Order: sequence, then C-alpha cells, then structure tokens
Amino acid sequence: MVRIEDDVQNPVTTALTDVLTTVRESTTDGEVADYIPELMLADPDHFGISAAGVLGRIYHAGDCTARFTIQSVSKPFVYALALSDLGADGVGARVGVEPSGEPFNAISLDERGRPANPMINAGAIVTTSLVTGSDKDERFERIRAQLSRFAGRELELDTAVFESEKATGHRNRALAELTLAAGVLGSGVDDATEPYFKQCSLLVDTTDLALMGATLANGGVHPLTGDRVVEEWVARDTLSLMLTCGMYDRSGDWIFRVGMPAKSGVGGGIVAVTPGQFGIGVFSPRLDRAGNSSRGVAALRMLSQHFGLHLLDHPQLPASPIEGILVRDEGESIIVRLRGEVNFVAAEQIVHEAIETVRRPADGILTLDFTSVTRVDQMAARLLLATVAEARANSFEIAFDDPSGVMFAG
Amino acid sequence: MVRIEDDVQNPVTTALTDVLTTVRESTTDGEVADYIPELMLADPDHFGISAAGVLGRIYHAGDCTARFTIQSVSKPFVYALALSDLGADGVGARVGVEPSGEPFNAISLDERGRPANPMINAGAIVTTSLVTGSDKDERFERIRAQLSRFAGRELELDTAVFESEKATGHRNRALAELTLAAGVLGSGVDDATEPYFKQCSLLVDTTDLALMGATLANGGVHPLTGDRVVEEWVARDTLSLMLTCGMYDRSGDWIFRVGMPAKSGVGGGIVAVTPGQFGIGVFSPRLDRAGNSSRGVAALRMLSQHFGLHLLDHPQLPASPIEGILVRDEGESIIVRLRGEVNFVAAEQIVHEAIETVRRPADGILTLDFTSVTRVDQMAARLLLATVAEARANSFEIAFDDPSGVMFAG
Amino acid sequence: MVRIEDDVQNPVTTALTDVLTTVRESTTDGEVADYIPELMLADPDHFGISAAGVLGRIYHAGDCTARFTIQSVSKPFVYALALSDLGADGVGARVGVEPSGEPFNAISLDERGRPANPMINAGAIVTTSLVTGSDKDERFERIRAQLSRFAGRELELDTAVFESEKATGHRNRALAELTLAAGVLGSGVDDATEPYFKQCSLLVDTTDLALMGATLANGGVHPLTGDRVVEEWVARDTLSLMLTCGMYDRSGDWIFRVGMPAKSGVGGGIVAVTPGQFGIGVFSPRLDRAGNSSRGVAALRMLSQHFGLHLLDHPQLPASPIEGILVRDEGESIIVRLRGEVNFVAAEQIVHEAIETVRRPADGILTLDFTSVTRVDQMAARLLLATVAEARANSFEIAFDDPSGVMFAG
Amino acid sequence: MVRIEDDVQNPVTTALTDVLTTVRESTTDGEVADYIPELMLADPDHFGISAAGVLGRIYHAGDCTARFTIQSVSKPFVYALALSDLGADGVGARVGVEPSGEPFNAISLDERGRPANPMINAGAIVTTSLVTGSDKDERFERIRAQLSRFAGRELELDTAVFESEKATGHRNRALAELTLAAGVLGSGVDDATEPYFKQCSLLVDTTDLALMGATLANGGVHPLTGDRVVEEWVARDTLSLMLTCGMYDRSGDWIFRVGMPAKSGVGGGIVAVTPGQFGIGVFSPRLDRAGNSSRGVAALRMLSQHFGLHLLDHPQLPASPIEGILVRDEGESIIVRLRGEVNFVAAEQIVHEAIETVRRPADGILTLDFTSVTRVDQMAARLLLATVAEARANSFEIAFDDPSGVMFAG
Repeated sequence: MVRIEDDVQNPVTTALTDVLTTVRESTTDGEVADYIPELMLADPDHFGISAAGVLGRIYHAGDCTARFTIQSVSKPFVYALALSDLGADGVGARVGVEPSGEPFNAISLDERGRPANPMINAGAIVTTSLVTGSDKDERFERIRAQLSRFAGRELELDTAVFESEKATGHRNRALAELTLAAGVLGSGVDDATEPYFKQCSLLVDTTDLALMGATLANGGVHPLTGDRVVEEWVARDTLSLMLTCGMYDRSGDWIFRVGMPAKSGVGGGIVAVTPGQFGIGVFSPRLDRAGNSSRGVAALRMLSQHFGLHLLDHPQLPASPIEGILVRDEGESIIVRLRGEVNFVAAEQIVHEAIETVRRPADGILTLDFTSVTRVDQMAARLLLATVAEARANSFEIAFDDPSGVMFAG
Repeated sequence: MVRIEDDVQNPVTTALTDVLTTVRESTTDGEVADYIPELMLADPDHFGISAAGVLGRIYHAGDCTARFTIQSVSKPFVYALALSDLGADGVGARVGVEPSGEPFNAISLDERGRPANPMINAGAIVTTSLVTGSDKDERFERIRAQLSRFAGRELELDTAVFESEKATGHRNRALAELTLAAGVLGSGVDDATEPYFKQCSLLVDTTDLALMGATLANGGVHPLTGDRVVEEWVARDTLSLMLTCGMYDRSGDWIFRVGMPAKSGVGGGIVAVTPGQFGIGVFSPRLDRAGNSSRGVAALRMLSQHFGLHLLDHPQLPASPIEGILVRDEGESIIVRLRGEVNFVAAEQIVHEAIETVRRPADGILTLDFTSVTRVDQMAARLLLATVAEARANSFEIAFDDPSGVMFAG
Repeated sequence: MVRIEDDVQNPVTTALTDVLTTVRESTTDGEVADYIPELMLADPDHFGISAAGVLGRIYHAGDCTARFTIQSVSKPFVYALALSDLGADGVGARVGVEPSGEPFNAISLDERGRPANPMINAGAIVTTSLVTGSDKDERFERIRAQLSRFAGRELELDTAVFESEKATGHRNRALAELTLAAGVLGSGVDDATEPYFKQCSLLVDTTDLALMGATLANGGVHPLTGDRVVEEWVARDTLSLMLTCGMYDRSGDWIFRVGMPAKSGVGGGIVAVTPGQFGIGVFSPRLDRAGNSSRGVAALRMLSQHFGLHLLDHPQLPASPIEGILVRDEGESIIVRLRGEVNFVAAEQIVHEAIETVRRPADGILTLDFTSVTRVDQMAARLLLATVAEARANSFEIAFDDPSGVMFAG
Repeated sequence: MVRIEDDVQNPVTTALTDVLTTVRESTTDGEVADYIPELMLADPDHFGISAAGVLGRIYHAGDCTARFTIQSVSKPFVYALALSDLGADGVGARVGVEPSGEPFNAISLDERGRPANPMINAGAIVTTSLVTGSDKDERFERIRAQLSRFAGRELELDTAVFESEKATGHRNRALAELTLAAGVLGSGVDDATEPYFKQCSLLVDTTDLALMGATLANGGVHPLTGDRVVEEWVARDTLSLMLTCGMYDRSGDWIFRVGMPAKSGVGGGIVAVTPGQFGIGVFSPRLDRAGNSSRGVAALRMLSQHFGLHLLDHPQLPASPIEGILVRDEGESIIVRLRGEVNFVAAEQIVHEAIETVRRPADGILTLDFTSVTRVDQMAARLLLATVAEARANSFEIAFDDPSGVMFAG
C-alpha cells in the first residue's frame, strides 16, 4: 500500500493548514489528560489534521506523524466488529443505542440491565466482551487486527499506557462487574477489561484516524487497500451510533454545530466522517471539560462551517435533471437528455415534466438518455420504472439509453 | 393555493398504499391516548400517509382527510419560531439541545436550570414562552400563524381538546413553575402554558404534516406557496433537533432503524423529513408504550428501508464526473466534459485525473465543460477554483464553460 | 395562662447561657436566608434559646423575645394536624415517611406518586392540602389555630413575608401541580400553596418553639394550658418523623451527633424534643449550607453532649429495684421493698432474685411493696402479673402493697 | 459460659410463643432468597425468636437452634469494629451516615465518593476494608473474632455459602471497584470483598442475634461473658446507624411502626435492640420484597406494639420523685425522701417543690434522702448540685443521704 503524500501546494492542504493556524491561535485552553502518568507526557502543543477521501487521497496539516493512544476513538470500530460477529440483534440484546445525556464513565444501565450505548465506558466494555475470542488474548488480537484493517496498517500496543490503564482501571472493572451481574457482559470480567484497556492503548496518528473514518465513509471498504473491512450495514449502524452518542453529553450540541458522525478520545484524537466523501482525523491533547480535544472540536467546527459538511445542510435544489429534449423523425422519436444525480425529486420532475407532458402528442418512441447521469437513487429508479410500465400498459413506448448502466446500479 | 391530487395510479401512491396495507395487517397493537376524554374519541383504525416533495407534489394513501390534534408535533415548529424571534444564542440560553434519554414528561433541568431540550414538555413550554408576544393571546396567535405558514393553510383550534388539556395540565404547569423558578421561562406561567396547550390543540391532517416537513426539507421555503417561512439555518437547526431528540427515549433506536429527522405526537401524528427531498406525514392514533404512533413508526421504518431514506445510507459512488475528454486543435485545446453533481470527491477526481494528468502534455487551453453538471458543492468549487488559480500561476490556462452557472450557484 | 419566668440565677438558665456564650464565639459562619427580601432584614446576631419542661417550667438565654417566621418548623405540627384529621392511613396514602437523602426542595415522588416524606416541601404541601377545610382560608385558619394550641398562645401572620413567599413560590407551586398530577394532593393548587405559604409565615419566638416541642414531649398535652392538642399516637408519629427526616439531608448526621427529634426552618428557628422531658427552641438566623441555623445546630449539639440528651445514650443500669427484704412473723411474711422505675429488666430481677429465690423457703405470704416505686412499665407489669398468676397456681400467695397505684397506672 | 434456659412456663416465654403462633398464622407470604443455591435450601417454615436481657437472661420461642448465615445482620457489628479501629472521624471520612432511601445494592456515592451509609452493600464493603488487618485472612479473622465476642461464642463459616457468594458477587465487586476508584476503599478489592463475603457467611442462630443485640443494648458489654466488646460510644453510634438505615428503603416506615434500632439479612435473620434493656433475634427465611424477613418484621411489630418497645413511646410521667417530707427537731431538720429515677424533670420537681418551698421556713438542715432512688441522670445531678451550691451561698445547708451512691454514679 502506498500513501499518496500530496504537494503542500494542494488547495485542500492549504485549507486544512489555514484552519489549523487559526485554531492554534484562537483556542489555547484545555489540559492534557492526567489520570495516568503516561498521558501527561503528551506535548500539549501537538496539533495535526488529516483528511482521507473515499478515493484514497490524503491531505495533511500540522503534526501528523505524532503517535498517540486511540483511547475511546476505538469504541465505534470495536462496536462494528461486535456487530459483524453477532449481528445487530445479538449486540442489541446486550447494549442499547440511546444517548444517555451523561458523561463517559456514567453507570447508565437500562431496565434490562443494558448500558445505554456502546460509547459510554460500560457499553464499550460490553461490546468488547462480545467480540468473538476463546480468551482475552485472542479477543484482543482480533480487535487489534480489525482496527488495523480499518487503518490499513498494523497498529501496535503502547504497553506502558496499557499497564497504567489496567492498574488504575477500578471504575472500568466495576462497570464490567456490574454488567456481568446484570447478565449482559459476554465474558468474564478480566476477559473484557484487559482487551478493553489494550484496545484503548493502541497507537495511532491522524492519518490512521482519517483512513479509519474514510473506511466508514466508504461503506466499509478501505479506500487504499480495497479491503472490505465491514459490511455496508455495519458501517451505517456505526455511523448512526457516532451521530447520536459520539461526543458524550455534548452529542446534541455537536450535531447542531458540526453535524458529522464523530468520536473523540482522551488521548486527544477525534475521528469525524462525511458519509460518502471522507474521513477526518484530528489530534491535539488539550482536553475540554467534557474530555474532548479542545482544538480538535474547534477545528472540526470550522471545517464543517467553512465547507458545508453538516449532514443536514440544506442541499440547494440542483439544476433541472432535464438537459434538453430532442425531437427527431418528425416527432416520432423524442430524446430526453437527462443529467446529474437522479434522486426522487429529479425522477418526479422527469415523470411530470418530460414523460407526462411529452407523451400526449407523441405516438412514437420516447428515449431517456442517461449518458450524463451519474447516479439514480433507488426510489427514483422505482418511480421511473413504474412509470414506464404504466406507459407500456397504455401502448406508449419508453426506451432507456444508459451507456454507463446507472439506472440499474443501485 | 391549489393542492395537486395525483391520480391513484401514480407509482408513488401505489408504493405508499402498499406500505399502508402491509402495516395495517402486521401492526395491530397500541392504544389510543386516554389522558383526556377528547383523545379517546379518535377512531383507532384511522391510518393515513401523505408525502410532499420539495417541488410541491403530494401523494396520499389511506385516511388523509381525517383531522387530529397536532400535539407534540408542534414542538419543532414552535422551536423554529423561537429561533427566528430570538436567535440561536437567545434560545440556547434557556433550553438545551441534548437528548436526555428520558420520557416526554421528564423533569430534566441541567445545571443551569435549562430543560434538556425543546422536545420534552419542559423545554417545549420554555420555547413557547420565548415566542414574542405581548400576552398569551398574541403569543398563541403568532404560533398559530406560523404553523399555518408551515402547513400552507390556516390551522384551527380544537377548543374542546384545549379546554381538556388545560383542565388536566397540572404536570405541565408544574414544569412551567419549575422553569420559572429556575429563571429560564420567558413569561409568566399562564402566558406560557395556555399558548402551549393551544398549540397542541391545533387541528391538522397528514397533508398538513407532510407539507410542514417539506418546508423544512426545502430549507424553510414552502413548496407550494413559495413562502420563506424560516431562514435556512433555522430549518437546519430544527432538523438537527428532530434528529437527536424527536422520538423521546427512543431517539437512538429511531436513528438506527429509520434515520430521518422526525417528531411524533400523542394525537397519533408523526412528521418525518428527507432533507432536500420531501416531508412525510403519518396518522394512526394507536400509540406504543413510548407514546409514538405504532403504525406510524412501522410505516416510516418500512418506507426508510424500502426506499433507502436513511440519512446515513452509504451513497454509492456516482459514476465518474468526467463524461469525456475531447482533444482539438492538435492538442492545444482540450475540453473535459463534466457531468452530475460535483461534490468534493468529484472535484478531487477532476483535479487529479483531468487537470493534473492533462496539463503536462498541453500548453494550450483546458476547458471544463459544466453543461451536464447539475450542482457544484461549496467545497468542490473551492478546490476547483484554487487549482485554477495555481494553474494560472504556472502559466497554464483553464477555462470554464458553464451555461447554467452551476459553478457559482453555491 | 402564665409563663413562669425563672430567676436568672437558676442553674438551668446558667447552663443555657453558658452554651449560648460558647457557641456565639465559636460559630460565626452562616448567612441569613436571602431568597426573599423580608428574611434578609433579620439581625444576623440574634441568638436565643428556650427550654420548656413537660411540667411547664421555661428557661431562657439570649434573644428570646425576638420574633421570626416559623417557616419549615411548621411542617411537623401541620403533619400532626393532618394525622388527627385523616388518621395514619389516610395521610400515609398521600405522603411517605422515608428519608430521601435529598434537599428540602427535592422532587422526590415515589412509585405511587407520593412525596418521600412530609418534611420536604413537596410532602409538606400535600399534608397542608389534607388538613380539613372547605376552602383555603378555612384550611389556614385551622392550621393557625392548631399551631397556636401547640404554642399556647395565638400566633399571628407576617403578611409581608407571606406576600413575598407567594410571589416567589414558583417551585412550590410546581411541587403542588406535580402532586396534583400524581393524584396525591388533597385540594386544588392554590388551596394548598396559599395556606402553606401562610403557615410558613407565622411569627414565633423561642418560647413558642420550646412549648410546641414540650407539647410533643408530653404526649400531646400542652404543659401549661393542659390542652390535649393531639392524641398520644399522633405525638409519637410526629416525633418519629422528626427523628428520621427533620434535618433534610443531614438527618443521619443529626441522629449521630444530637440524637433528638428536631425540625429546622430557614427563618433560623429549630425545635428539638427530649421525649417525656422537654422541648427546646433555638433561634439564630445565620444558616449553614444545608439551610439549618448554624448556631442553632451547634447549640443543640452542645446541649446534647453536655447533658446526655441523645436518645440512644446508654442508660446505665439503675440500682437494683429491690431496696430490701424484710422477713417477719418467723418467716411466714416476707416483704420485698421495691424502688424506682420498674421496667422489664427490673421486673426480671424482681421475679428471679426475689420471688423465685424467696418462695422456696416460704410458705406464707410474699408482699411486694411498691411504696418507693415511681413507675411500672407495661411489659414489666405483664411479667409480674403473670408470675403472680403462676405462683398462685402453685398455691403460693403474692400480695401487692401499692399505695400510689403505680402497678396499674400504665 | 452457661446459657440459662428458662422454664417454658416463664411468662416472657409465653408472650414470645403467643407472638410466634399468631404471626405464623397471619403471615404466610414471602419467598426464600434464591440468588445463590445454598440459601434456597433453607426450610421456609423455620421460625424462631430469642430475647436476651442485659442481665443475661434469655427467652426463646420456636426454632431457636436452627442455624443460618448472618448475611447483612453482620453489617452494624463490623461497622462497630471499624469504629473501634479507626475512630468516628476515620470511618466517617470513608462512608456516610445518611439514609439513602434506596435498596441495599444501590450505588449511592455522595459528592465525596463515600457510600451513603454502612448498611448498603457499598458502605458495608468499605467498612470491612477499614478493619485493621495485614491481609484479607487476618482481616476476616478479626471480624470473625469480634462477631464471636458479640455473640459470646465462636462463630463458624459456612464455606459453601461463602464460595457461592464469592462466585456470584459481581455487583459487590463492582461496588468495591467503584469505591476504590473513588478513593474511599481502605484496601484492595479482593482484600475487602473476600472478608465481606465471609462475614456474610458466618453461621448464627436466634440466640446469637439476641445476645449480639443485648451487647449493644448493654452499652457494649456482653451480658453473660462480661466482655467489653466495644466502647460505649461505639455501641451508641452503631445503634444510631441501625435506627436510621437498618431496614434499607423501609427504614422510615420501620421507625413509625416498630421504633427499635434493627438490622435484617437475606438469610432471614433480624436483630433488634431495646437500648438498656434487651436484644431480640428473629429468624424466618421467607423474605418480603424489600428483602426483610416477612415473619420477622411482623413479629417485631407485634412485640413493639404489645409491649410498648417503641423508642418514642410517650413515657408516662412517673409518680412524683418526692415520696414524703419528714419534719424533725421542731422544724430544724427536714428530710425529703426521694424515690425512683431522677431525671431532669424529677430534679426540677425536687428543686421547685421541695427545696424552694421548704427552705423559706427552715433555718436548719434540709436532707435529701436518696435511699429509694435508683438512678440520677447527668442533667438532674447538675441541677441538684447547682441548687445546693446556690443554697449554700445563701447560708442554707442541704445534705445528701445517699447510701447507694446513686447521686455520683453517672
């Protein structure tokens, strides 16, 4: 695998660098995590951003080779592994998907004893325990291998951090005992907590996080290796979870201000995803009160605002999907040239403005030309096909000219 | 205003009818709300669906003329009005945006005394109190007028329901008193609760809900009347809120299974939105334990699954944005025909595959032909423009042929 | 009624004065309540103690004529009135008796919708609503009359405080609405809150509080007026409640350090009771963080420690209840002189050491002489009578010489 | 040590038997604890009561030789040991004394991380961890030895129950981890939980519980062995705790209906204490929903009501402490014969009715005859001595005739 390092002159790189420079000046608060000594060694001024597109190009700004422990950023990816191993119902029986409005270390067990969601520690420990593995070593090795596939390279353990996490992880062990008592832990306590402490201690850099996010953005397929890391439904469920629960008790505010599925860790890393487009990895070890990277949050907020990355940003109506109508053979052949992405709204336009309008005068063939069409949504395709069927029933012929086969690609 | 009633043969209508028929058979549980006598009068077998596209077409299935009280479905629309009146900061100082993981009538005040979000009753009462109005009557009249603009017709009050809500609304008055005591209520108790009880008692049908949703889907502009009901940012913030908090303590599950911003009410109505495409209104008064319409939830789940409406469904990569490359004038003029919607990923492809590849051999003019392009994203436009600027700096000319002006429409 | 004002030379007065002087120097923290302007007018240096014995003598130290609003000190006395009106089951159906471990204004409703106990505001509002009365005025007048009987003089309303409490009592009205919604409020909201705000605004001094406590200490009979204000069981239940719930979330600590049933109010007053002996009233408006009078708490703690008033202080074993044994008539008549209070342990001693030991040699009459006995407990009397019955069954005669009739007074 | 087994004809035994018979018929609900298999082996119909007086006599009814595991009844006694080892402040820094209103297994940590009280599991585990011991074995051995001293015989471990508690004790280990994380656990997790599981698995019968309670009733001295097991203040603090927190979330109700410090365990045992008089042990393995022995609760409620054992029962005023006044030597010598227990109220009477009344006519000696007095309270003694001092200052002589020395025994 080759990582394409772009010229620093690249405009995307320039944009990332601008954001980084601005945020470095405007955001100076936050403290490095101090609950274990190893995390306190982090250089508080490290700050890097990487973005990886689903086509495999990667852009960087700042300290992108600095390594840090992945910490809670591992949670959605291990959740994805548990989903792959057990299916949605198997995992759903043990851990919920509801935002709890509570901090990461809350003891939020619902009436069935399930942790509220896999992003709080209690839930993450349960999802770790659900990963298939005959013992804690095999379980961790599967987790490490899977996260490595998401990153596209072999991730390594920071042994010192792991030992320290393990030595001070009383509350996490308590959460494991509680979920075991509640009947939802999938293994013994140590068989869950040790792999959990280890998964949190895997070393990554912002490129890794960007590619892990890009793999989710790409429906589960790694943009560079081409490896199908998880099924498409797993990628979607994982992004759903990141959307509602990724930023702890700031998740609602996050959707308002950033609007991208994301997950942060106390190591200072954040992964964010623009579905279908790219993954972003940010690293800055200064944390705000909620335990999220201060500069990371500021950078993603700025990126979202400047580049319109919010999931619910109003997509302006595209230009009409009908590029032109050609009448040939004295009206017996009518060609409607379509263009762009044909979603339901576009299909509606095609049906109403082209077909229904046109068919009345014409007795010949109506041809829909899809040459300039780049995609046809499922619902749009259904509408078009149903209309064609109805037209045929009325002895009205409609033909498709679709050299790229976009009509049936969905 | 004319409402376009489509032929029942329309394939969209057929699809809605299929969903309705299936759900009517498969989902028979749930009870009509009984906390006030008026709601118990609802026919439990009423069931209707309407869908309104952003271009103004409306499709129906089932009991679409049955009227019912809007109840909590009013909450996001009144929130939108408060946002318009006070701005995001003004409202945010009084009510949060975090999902609480709690039922609709929970007393969830945060450390600043703010209700967790505007979808639980406490928060909705606060947002109602924030609507500008010199007294409770003026406040309600502004709310009624605004919701009428969202619907595109004058909505009327069900006086009997209002009187009953008012007579039994002790808990809601308690929430008003608590928020007043906490310093976040924007008015006196009665000046908040009476308009609140009234807004809940407005009569709507599924067409109204579909159009209210479509107005949000359309960035705040009503699809039929063309009225800009709210600013685009208000529509986005309202959809953000519906996404995380719309379905009470089932909001997480809702995102997993349906993935559309939505809001339900105990009257049996649900509004759901596919941003940029359409709004859906469903009505069936049988409620599940969480207080959401059983059949409404089932119908929206089926619609989402069958038609790929989930916000995070992996958008398959469109066909390449480069439809073709024409070399003319012995290589001195190269025309790159683009097509479809050019988002960041597409722009990346254009830069890397067309411009960078092509410019090396060419000394002449490179023309990007946008004739078949339907939209250019903000981030894509930035990337393209920056590339052009860089090319020019390197004495390499790039021209745009953009007859529809899509390049600068964002 | 005459209040006996003791000579300042009285040693009890001296002791109270010593405590007052010591506490005034050692305890200088705490702030006057400031949630309404009227309470802020209190002189923070006012400090007084009164103690009233069940025989009607009253001792004073400090500012004992300063009047202040009774505030939450009214709660147990209104609870006692509600118990008298509705009985224990009638009140128990609407409000619990469990300490909640929460502050006074907590919203602690149990699974049946009942406030945790009548000492938190929610519970106090419910008990007020349960007092018989055709409207809010009659209800308040009954409360005022009853508290006046507890005090032994007509208590008056501080109208300014009442108006202020009413104007700012949003949270309390919220609690009333919530309990009304839960079905446990005994009246309409205003019919509960207005008498509640008024009962809190009754003016008292430390003598009043001491006599109100002494009435409870005396089983419900006022020591001076002789008025049976409440039944004995009502006095006991009221003291039980004060014991577990009287000092809000400091109630457990209170039992450890003071060990007397008590109740405090934000006006700066505290009433404390030594069952069977006396009531104490303290007033100092400086409040600690839990809302209890700082100096009042310190004074009662010192009084408890110095004078052994803790309810669970180990009562040293009294001297043997057998003062002497007289053998007369050549052993045919044996007189056992008893003394003191004969509780179960003493009765055990009498049975085992006197009767069982003595009866073997004697065939004549055994006389138990109760002349110096001051009281015989119920359980002791049962034991003695059963023993006598058994002795008679064995043809062994036991006679009682009980000039004061203490044996059958229980 | 000899245990005195009384004749079944003894009236106390008869009373206990009556209660047992009545409760056996009236109370048939409740289920044997089933969370570990060993407890399910208990015979649900076993039912026994023992009462042990502070003078060492023991009374029995029913199945008093059946052994069962002490379970949570151990908690107050281990708390007493921790108090002895660390002092009140040392223990108070790690665990609170506030009733939590929550079930036994609640996670109630206060803002300082302390469990609410030592009666919920979290608090009991902390107190166990505070018992001095170099390792878990030494810690348990000290606990076992101390509880044996309370019982007056060597208690033994039920190994099978211990192993089962340990194997299933996930929630308790979780509580230990949480308190360790909060910094209040006094040892490692296993060093706290293993002695905790073992202390719960000690085998006792109702005689043991009665004597353990009697030792607390007796101020810390075992009634039979004479062993001072704990200091008097420790006994008092332990009883204070049992009073407010002994019956979990039914503690408030318990004080209302029974009014004795008590502690129950899921093994079916309950210990209850009448301070200064006796301890009661009850055993019946059928548990109510709160986890207390159904028949045990019913029996103690009946005993309290029938024999007036409620701590706050209104003690009727004793007969006057003045048995008679003898005037001798032509008025120059006046002898006031006192009797009974002289508490503050009695001392008040003596001062006011005897001394103050008498001294005016007399110039000679006033003698207070304490021959028939069985006890003088601390506060009463202070009042009398202060009065004497004042009298002497006024050249008025008062003499004491106190053959038993009760005046200075306090």
